[in-house]
Amino acid sequence: MINDLNQLSLRLHKKLQGKLRVESKIRLNHRKALSLVYTPGVAEAVKHISDNPKSVFDLTIKHTTVAVVSDGSAVLGLGNVGPEAALPVMEGKCAIFKEFAGIDAFPICLATQEVNEIVATIKNISPVFGAINLEDISAPRCFEIEEKLQKMLDIPVMHDDQHATAIVVLAGLLNAAKIVDTQLIKCKVVIVGSGAAGCAIAKLLFDFGIKNIIMVDREGILSKKRSGLIRYKKKLLTITNPSDISGDLVNAARKSDVLIGVSSKKVFNKKIISVMNPHPIVFALANPDPEISPSDAKRWGVAIYANGRSDYSNQINNALVFPGLFRGLLKNRSRSITNEIKIRAAFALAKVIKNPSTKKFIPSIFDKRVAASVANSIEIS
Amino acid sequence: MINDLNQLSLRLHKKLQGKLRVESKIRLNHRKALSLVYTPGVAEAVKHISDNPKSVFDLTIKHTTVAVVSDGSAVLGLGNVGPEAALPVMEGKCAIFKEFAGIDAFPICLATQEVNEIVATIKNISPVFGAINLEDISAPRCFEIEEKLQKMLDIPVMHDDQHATAIVVLAGLLNAAKIVDTQLIKCKVVIVGSGAAGCAIAKLLFDFGIKNIIMVDREGILSKKRSGLIRYKKKLLTITNPSDISGDLVNAARKSDVLIGVSSKKVFNKKIISVMNPHPIVFALANPDPEISPSDAKRWGVAIYANGRSDYSNQINNALVFPGLFRGLLKNRSRSITNEIKIRAAFALAKVIKNPSTKKFIPSIFDKRVAASVANSIEIS
Repeated sequence: MINDLNQLSLRLHKKLQGKLRVESKIRLNHRKALSLVYTPGVAEAVKHISDNPKSVFDLTIKHTTVAVVSDGSAVLGLGNVGPEAALPVMEGKCAIFKEFAGIDAFPICLATQEVNEIVATIKNISPVFGAINLEDISAPRCFEIEEKLQKMLDIPVMHDDQHATAIVVLAGLLNAAKIVDTQLIKCKVVIVGSGAAGCAIAKLLFDFGIKNIIMVDREGILSKKRSGLIRYKKKLLTITNPSDISGDLVNAARKSDVLIGVSSKKVFNKKIISVMNPHPIVFALANPDPEISPSDAKRWGVAIYANGRSDYSNQINNALVFPGLFRGLLKNRSRSITNEIKIRAAFALAKVIKNPSTKKFIPSIFDKRVAASVANSIEIS
Repeated sequence: MINDLNQLSLRLHKKLQGKLRVESKIRLNHRKALSLVYTPGVAEAVKHISDNPKSVFDLTIKHTTVAVVSDGSAVLGLGNVGPEAALPVMEGKCAIFKEFAGIDAFPICLATQEVNEIVATIKNISPVFGAINLEDISAPRCFEIEEKLQKMLDIPVMHDDQHATAIVVLAGLLNAAKIVDTQLIKCKVVIVGSGAAGCAIAKLLFDFGIKNIIMVDREGILSKKRSGLIRYKKKLLTITNPSDISGDLVNAARKSDVLIGVSSKKVFNKKIISVMNPHPIVFALANPDPEISPSDAKRWGVAIYANGRSDYSNQINNALVFPGLFRGLLKNRSRSITNEIKIRAAFALAKVIKNPSTKKFIPSIFDKRVAASVANSIEIS
């Protein structure tokens, strides 16, 4: 079945020869049209922008155009496949932008993986775009690239793999906490996996107000006692592990309320679930095989379960966030993405489900209200 | 009237808010479509390209996508307006690519005017594109940028202002020579203006076989006797002015057969035309005011006349060449644009007019045969 889907997809890609089209909004089949859209008429728009730089948003594609930029270093679960092989994914992403939010997105795949060169390239091409969506760039380079660009540019820059994931996770937790009737900010949250997504989830949950967050990587709990931690993991210690516990995943999970997997393996077992507090909330986001299957989760007493697969009902999927988020950012001509914006977006996404239940607490990406709700949440009154 | 057109154009730009749209070729309104176009199905296309790098042309937009790149340094006749103000022109150019050749072109406006940074940026974004069209970049930087990129990339790179103009001029001269029944390669050709277009015209006519070419800039004839010539003008002396004459424009025009203006002023007067050989051929390409008006040209005895204005019948316009040329280059997956390709394109364009006459020797850009004829000429047998 999966194999069939893959073959079907490859055949579709061969047939389409590219999933995007660039269209002109008006036909140029007579002289008048051409003289309005191109020379000599276009000179008037040029002069107008030259005199009023901000009018580039009114007279060009900038106000609705997003660059989907990748260096091909961390594509899906396939790793460092390079820029050409990353292109089908970025095209797909642009198609999603169009379908769910009417945004004109264009794929940019970079022939460099050097941080400063990536930053300079994106800065140099930024005049055409209203926002930059970074995609499938490996950690820790993705942190540095995003940070540098955010300081440099006056348009929003967001690494989707980090922040869109974090926003959906927070939205899911908001509804999950309602269902099990607990106060989210008082929960103990364990995050397994300290890559791009794990870091962003930790930061957003911390900014939301959750103070007891434990991060676990392949070597165990991130703690001050561990030597040789790389810079960005060290930095995470300022917002996680307040009691500086150490040890393995079982140690981390003990008396925790929420367990979030953003690893790459099936690492959640019966033992781990059994040491959690009553009504455990488990989001198992490894793809395609979640850290724990829905049936095992049920069997071992997980109260609220979500994963990243499209064949399960509560799917934690970036596409729930990025189309609406960018729509809102573009509409408001936001210059950056603040924590406040991310938290608002999470609340907006959560409230699409009126009466959350264990069966349904995260909306479907095909629910038309999702993008609109997220986009409207950005509006700063 | 011109003023009306400008106001109409500005209003149209405000209404459209950007002249291009990025569309998805398929709708993503159900789960199956999404799983084919995006994860998990897309992984198969990623792996395919990773294993067979050339298949990026079969599975993505690369085979039909052109980057229209400008740094905004020499936009229309308006000069250095910068990247944002250049965007309406680049969008228009992309719309022309679509209308006349079905090519998906995307505008890239650069926030740098430094040669090496421009080269690095274009190299870095090249994986998505099948060809690079440089546009409205000032001389002499445009020469260096084009040359460096051509050496670096395995896709065609062309500075349109140079080569498309040169190809149309050669096409026009091929037909003009037929009408006045002369051998083009034996003609004495004077080119007035030694910017991007002037240089490219000189080079193409020389490669075609014309050996007696004289270039004139604001200070007079380019000759070895002149001191202080900048590097690229010195280089032109190896292909022009074989007898090393010097002096002013009248001196240059004496006993010449062809006079080509790519300057910015109304510099061709009665005296200049009167010293030319019988049946003078004059292309006056300054925009919007040609070096000599059609009525003055007629009055002073010009036999064959063309200019760059859309309201005159024989219009020398880049758009006669670039859509078909890039269509042909993309179709043949050409890696570069050779002189042979340019000369073939000129012949293909010229022969669209079956029986050239003084009234009609350059086809209209709305003639459907133009792009097809130019595109087919690229096919290397």
